[in-house]
Amino acid sequence: MSKYGTIVQHIIDSIEHGSYQAGDALPSLRQLVQQQQVSLNTARRAYYELERLGYVEAHDRSGYVVAAGAVHGADRLAAPLGAPFIHPALYDTRPLTHAFVAAMRRYDEALAEPALAGLPVLRRQIAQQAHAEGWRLQADDVLVTCGGMEALSLAIAAVTHGIADPCVAVLLPAFPGLLGWLAEHGVRVLPLPVDGDGVLDSAALQQALAAGQVHAIALMTAYCHPHGRSLPLATQQQLLALAQQHDVALIEDDAYRHLGFAEQVPLPLKAQDTDGRVLLCATFSKSLAPGYRVGWLAPGRYAETVRRLKLAHTLASPLPNQMALAELLAGGRHLPLLARLRQQLAQKVAALEQALRQRLPAQIDIRPAEGGYFVWLEQLPCDTVQLAAQAEREGIVLAPGSLCLPGDAGRRALRLNASYFDPLRQQAALDWLARALR
Amino acid sequence: MSKYGTIVQHIIDSIEHGSYQAGDALPSLRQLVQQQQVSLNTARRAYYELERLGYVEAHDRSGYVVAAGAVHGADRLAAPLGAPFIHPALYDTRPLTHAFVAAMRRYDEALAEPALAGLPVLRRQIAQQAHAEGWRLQADDVLVTCGGMEALSLAIAAVTHGIADPCVAVLLPAFPGLLGWLAEHGVRVLPLPVDGDGVLDSAALQQALAAGQVHAIALMTAYCHPHGRSLPLATQQQLLALAQQHDVALIEDDAYRHLGFAEQVPLPLKAQDTDGRVLLCATFSKSLAPGYRVGWLAPGRYAETVRRLKLAHTLASPLPNQMALAELLAGGRHLPLLARLRQQLAQKVAALEQALRQRLPAQIDIRPAEGGYFVWLEQLPCDTVQLAAQAEREGIVLAPGSLCLPGDAGRRALRLNASYFDPLRQQAALDWLARALR
Repeated sequence: MSKYGTIVQHIIDSIEHGSYQAGDALPSLRQLVQQQQVSLNTARRAYYELERLGYVEAHDRSGYVVAAGAVHGADRLAAPLGAPFIHPALYDTRPLTHAFVAAMRRYDEALAEPALAGLPVLRRQIAQQAHAEGWRLQADDVLVTCGGMEALSLAIAAVTHGIADPCVAVLLPAFPGLLGWLAEHGVRVLPLPVDGDGVLDSAALQQALAAGQVHAIALMTAYCHPHGRSLPLATQQQLLALAQQHDVALIEDDAYRHLGFAEQVPLPLKAQDTDGRVLLCATFSKSLAPGYRVGWLAPGRYAETVRRLKLAHTLASPLPNQMALAELLAGGRHLPLLARLRQQLAQKVAALEQALRQRLPAQIDIRPAEGGYFVWLEQLPCDTVQLAAQAEREGIVLAPGSLCLPGDAGRRALRLNASYFDPLRQQAALDWLARALR
Repeated sequence: MSKYGTIVQHIIDSIEHGSYQAGDALPSLRQLVQQQQVSLNTARRAYYELERLGYVEAHDRSGYVVAAGAVHGADRLAAPLGAPFIHPALYDTRPLTHAFVAAMRRYDEALAEPALAGLPVLRRQIAQQAHAEGWRLQADDVLVTCGGMEALSLAIAAVTHGIADPCVAVLLPAFPGLLGWLAEHGVRVLPLPVDGDGVLDSAALQQALAAGQVHAIALMTAYCHPHGRSLPLATQQQLLALAQQHDVALIEDDAYRHLGFAEQVPLPLKAQDTDGRVLLCATFSKSLAPGYRVGWLAPGRYAETVRRLKLAHTLASPLPNQMALAELLAGGRHLPLLARLRQQLAQKVAALEQALRQRLPAQIDIRPAEGGYFVWLEQLPCDTVQLAAQAEREGIVLAPGSLCLPGDAGRRALRLNASYFDPLRQQAALDWLARALR
């Protein structure tokens, strides 16, 4: 291709691959001449051609900008009941932003203090919150991570480190991020089936543990993903006892403990950990600080391995974000925010449950969630992977249960994100779903 | 232990493990009664004992705080010439903080836009910066990471994914984080020796490539860690040609390209990549945004694997931090900051090189760095691992060369962080070093 043609093609590519938006300034004629080693005439011809094709507009003397019609944005989908996160409109992010701005006045000071395991003041706040909830955790035992996903990732990596053919027993249904990690890293999954009342059938687990074939147990205890109900204390204690008896680790994913609809915050299973075998994985992303990517991990006896892996993967966690959270927590300003979020989630979930009960056939069992932001439907009369594909053609985004539950049971389940539910605007979507499930 | 004794011991532990600092409020008597299910009398007795032991002070009516004398902070080391990062005082963080504050006004808007691969406006800025430097990169090809270490971690994980006994050829000396990752994950290292002029002895590499025993080549091209000199273009092209010929990946760690002492920013080797085999790993941590943990990766043909691994490890990168950087870059306000930092680093490095030349025996060759913030000494007359241990006892922190260079050569090398060098305050430390190296 000629130099002139190469320049034209590169700029078209750059616009079509999202490097420039309408109105963005493009390199000046002078810059093109220098960078591409072409004559001013060639550079002018290239822009002239781009103008003719409708990609650029001449601005002032020698400036060119991307033309308004050159960029086509993707359309948004209408009813994202399959979304994974809480709708951002349910957060009041202003107090955290204010805390951020206040904290950043001391940024130079914070930078001077080495904090590879996390900002000391945030780690103290986390320990003190635990004490206020009535359980024991020390600041030194906390490693701040890049979000809850890194906490979980480090926990699994640590307990399976150096094991040739690792296997983790997983309470199902489970968080898709956990199942994704295990699949991505070739870790076998032993499914732990619980019934609707949270009673565990532990026969297969006991057998596998006795044979030394299971290296860790992974579970949520509070407002579990995706059904939003807590695991009964008896089942939690049964699993902890089995882990102790067979000397395996227990990974507790604590993403939703502060999202319950009742006022009392339940204790994590970690509170009963006497010998450091529980790795507690927590996050502020769902409760207080969406997008900040601040999570934490209490790795117990795996602290040394976790620390090494954290250094190798992301070195340290973002400092300004930790400062903002520490500032918010220190003032106790997070408590009204949490209370408001929990109330909103309770209302949204109740409204979606009610709307579904009104529309769906009576034999579809809708068990009320106790926390979180999902409604989980099981034993549906159709394959929900196919249903989600059909729904997408109607502009409705659904999450098939197979994301959380492998096998046939998952293909007959559906996870609905109640935080996106708007009773007025999503009637048509729910009516469509009701028809499809009849 | 009695309930009373348990409470006393827990609070002492909490103070000694860093969960509380002097002046921090402890749980109130009422909280203790509720949480620990003890009588008010028992709670009072516990605090009375803690007061007697000097751990707490009664504050007002029912409040207790940690006593000033109860907490002992760690002493700081005096001359951290072995530090890994740039001294925080060399950054002017205020413009970025201002950009942060300005950007956060639109936080709710940003949250509503899904951005798992990174904030679109930052990815566009990164592409446009490349275009301004005279090379081609598209926003769609950029994945924003949690710092440069995650970029590097994802790149190696992607190119070694699914390979039974992976081996990476590494240009030595190298960044310790890279060597640490490879060791942690059981990846074999084939050392690539270059001489002082950057000429590669490629015999062993060619043989290993021909035998299919090498799966990627990892290198820095600009102001390489730790010696601060760039790899000659001829060597860069030789390695790219070998990678192409044997169809292996090339991981380019681009942490220091903007820290050169000359004005012209060199192009990355990625600029010559015609078939997507170069994975470029970059970061803003060293240049503009220390502590923000914003890096990026242009993974070429490995984009799909990298995307999956990123989801499994940290899901997404922190959003406020990306917004702050995008805001700073859009206004071009980063350019004077970079210019100032580079000038300061050049001065610091020159000053340390001069101070060393004045003191060290003439046979120790001090090759001038062209960028970065380290001075690298080789072929020293003693074992620098032992030297660093001796130095620590004098309050001098040194980084032995073995961090960057395995084997005997590394044990005779030393990496000095010039950004921490203060000619007035560190005369004694340098004199000590000169005596030890005689």
